[in-house]
Amino acid sequence: MALIVQKYGGTSVAEVERIRNVARKVGAMRDKGNDMVIVLSAMSGETDRLLRLAHQIAPNPSEREMDVMMATGEQVSVALLAIALQSMGYRACSYLGHQVKILTDRSFTKARIKEIDREKILQDLKKGYVVIVAGFQGVDKENNITTLGRGGSDTSAVAIAAALEADVCEVYTDVDGIYTTDPNICSNARKREKISYDEMLEMASLGAKVLQIRSVGLAKKFNVPLCVKSTFIEGTGTVVTREDMIMEKVLVAGITYDTKEAKITIKSVPDVPGVAARIFEPLSNANIVVDMIIQNASVDGKADVTFTIPKADYRKAMEIVRRVGREMDALDVQGDENIAKVSIVGTGMRDHPGVAAQMFSTLGNEGINIMMISTSEIKISCVIEDKYTELAVRVLHDVFGLAEPSAQGST
Amino acid sequence: MALIVQKYGGTSVAEVERIRNVARKVGAMRDKGNDMVIVLSAMSGETDRLLRLAHQIAPNPSEREMDVMMATGEQVSVALLAIALQSMGYRACSYLGHQVKILTDRSFTKARIKEIDREKILQDLKKGYVVIVAGFQGVDKENNITTLGRGGSDTSAVAIAAALEADVCEVYTDVDGIYTTDPNICSNARKREKISYDEMLEMASLGAKVLQIRSVGLAKKFNVPLCVKSTFIEGTGTVVTREDMIMEKVLVAGITYDTKEAKITIKSVPDVPGVAARIFEPLSNANIVVDMIIQNASVDGKADVTFTIPKADYRKAMEIVRRVGREMDALDVQGDENIAKVSIVGTGMRDHPGVAAQMFSTLGNEGINIMMISTSEIKISCVIEDKYTELAVRVLHDVFGLAEPSAQGST
Repeated sequence: MALIVQKYGGTSVAEVERIRNVARKVGAMRDKGNDMVIVLSAMSGETDRLLRLAHQIAPNPSEREMDVMMATGEQVSVALLAIALQSMGYRACSYLGHQVKILTDRSFTKARIKEIDREKILQDLKKGYVVIVAGFQGVDKENNITTLGRGGSDTSAVAIAAALEADVCEVYTDVDGIYTTDPNICSNARKREKISYDEMLEMASLGAKVLQIRSVGLAKKFNVPLCVKSTFIEGTGTVVTREDMIMEKVLVAGITYDTKEAKITIKSVPDVPGVAARIFEPLSNANIVVDMIIQNASVDGKADVTFTIPKADYRKAMEIVRRVGREMDALDVQGDENIAKVSIVGTGMRDHPGVAAQMFSTLGNEGINIMMISTSEIKISCVIEDKYTELAVRVLHDVFGLAEPSAQGST
Repeated sequence: MALIVQKYGGTSVAEVERIRNVARKVGAMRDKGNDMVIVLSAMSGETDRLLRLAHQIAPNPSEREMDVMMATGEQVSVALLAIALQSMGYRACSYLGHQVKILTDRSFTKARIKEIDREKILQDLKKGYVVIVAGFQGVDKENNITTLGRGGSDTSAVAIAAALEADVCEVYTDVDGIYTTDPNICSNARKREKISYDEMLEMASLGAKVLQIRSVGLAKKFNVPLCVKSTFIEGTGTVVTREDMIMEKVLVAGITYDTKEAKITIKSVPDVPGVAARIFEPLSNANIVVDMIIQNASVDGKADVTFTIPKADYRKAMEIVRRVGREMDALDVQGDENIAKVSIVGTGMRDHPGVAAQMFSTLGNEGINIMMISTSEIKISCVIEDKYTELAVRVLHDVFGLAEPSAQGST
């Protein structure tokens, strides 16, 4: 008997038969005597339908009103699951953000949870109810409806699990766990049994879109054991947990890649204080997010600055940087859209300084040129030509032994 | 300058272009300096879509969860109208039942409004906002979502108008007012300029489905001037108001008909106390609503009882009454589905005792046999053979001078 929070994503409740399937899974866990709290997303497709409607009315609809509208998606799915559970003989009750009071700040469309009132949920659990809560939504202190941004239901689930001090927060999705790398590229990619919060944070931000990254940060903060599972395939999934709960540490937990960035180099700018600000402020003002930044050593008081930005912003960014380059008498501005960022992630790196060197030499041996490097305590990212993406991922996956069971961290 | 509450029904907001049309109408009234509060229904079709979804999950979904789901329809339309108004440069803000606190009892799917918190709306009006409120929905005192039943948005609008002491509550629909009778039957039916609450109550209950009947009762109670107008055709519509606001009274305000009832006669039952209960209790237990009841004079301690019920319940009712008839040794049970109820409505009847006689003789002159009669202070209903429905309506419309302008009550 445990208190279990489960979150089901949009594909898991996409149609009536799938909602019944979720009800059966929930019911089976309830039958075992567990206290069940279920967090749902909108039926998949619904969010896009509503967005289309709003954009037919106005190109830039107000964010407050968008949230009023978008919150209906989850409202429908929680009611339908409650009805499904009741029709199977369970006691069930749905709640919206304003009812269990998921209090957020007032940042419409990307609000952050401040507090959750757990009393109503605990009372219902005590009476034997399955409690179903609409994900993705909350209210600010004036009772305006807010939403948490795409993927926000993950964050709702973790926040509710934290508030209830649940034993586990299970996130059900259409993949059966976190893999050592993309199985579409590496046929011998393996599902991890456990992964640390920090590794997951790096993996999530690098493109493994299984969990909303904020939900992982929140799980880490409140020490909520997270478990990623498939709605459609039985299995143990992957547990995301504290590093010290993973007995045998691995050197590298996973390999990720990202082909959605482009790089820009501005050549031979004066190497004096304030230069970086002159380049990056106008980009920031244009809402362009800069990822990696490299400035090479100064030669004759001049330096080259290279950075990456989302491919979608490439043209806009090039215009801005060309203008800045002229103002600063830069020698040239060069852009390159044909790049990929390949990263290795693992808490084990902290104690093994040789990992970076091994990554570089592995890529070098394959004739892959490294254009940029960026590192954190548990991550090393290299920018390479995008045509080598798959090759790089495969050789790194092999060299760090991710395909071999003996290399996997397990308790 | 006035405080105007407008309600737009589902067909008025059925698609994006129509929502823009509503926004233009609202904006034009706002431009004249009026304070505007708008109450909306769900986009037409949406309610049925949601009902279908729920019934795919379970044949008898719980009413609490149905209300959670059904309330989303209005939530979407209020957000869309706010977005449309904002895109035209107006300040606008949408509110749901729980936000302006439309407090109801806990009768899910048919809740009754108890109280409305007007402060938020008044504050926003003062700041120049168009306030848009989701119709049809409220919350009970535990913040559970409730709905007011089909057509409940009319009632929401009148209740809000009453709470705000609005100058008028305009109900926009797909007809341009209340007619003396059905224009599909009588080509010379005329739109009334004014009609009294009581007349409208009788007309509504007799089949003129322009306004939810509860909204008329509420308007009468709080003395809210109601105005029924078309969203699609410019015009003055029909004002529903206090009887003493209508200067020149008419004898008959309108003719209505209803072909959705059937009649049942149980012949020669003992004329002793308790007989009526023995007949009508089992019908009531089976949720069959009995409309007119007639018991003829007793002959030899035996009487015939005739009553009408909805045609949809005819077979079920016949089974029940046959069983009861056997138990009471009734001579026979006869049913008739081919009937129509034709009614004349008008507050002027109170002072003109000859109206009933004129109705009976008019029908008699046409060879139309009257099977049942029922009267109230301002209404006379006759049950006739249904093949005479149109004929009866037309001759009554003529004989009471409803087609002639001189016969119309006007100020």
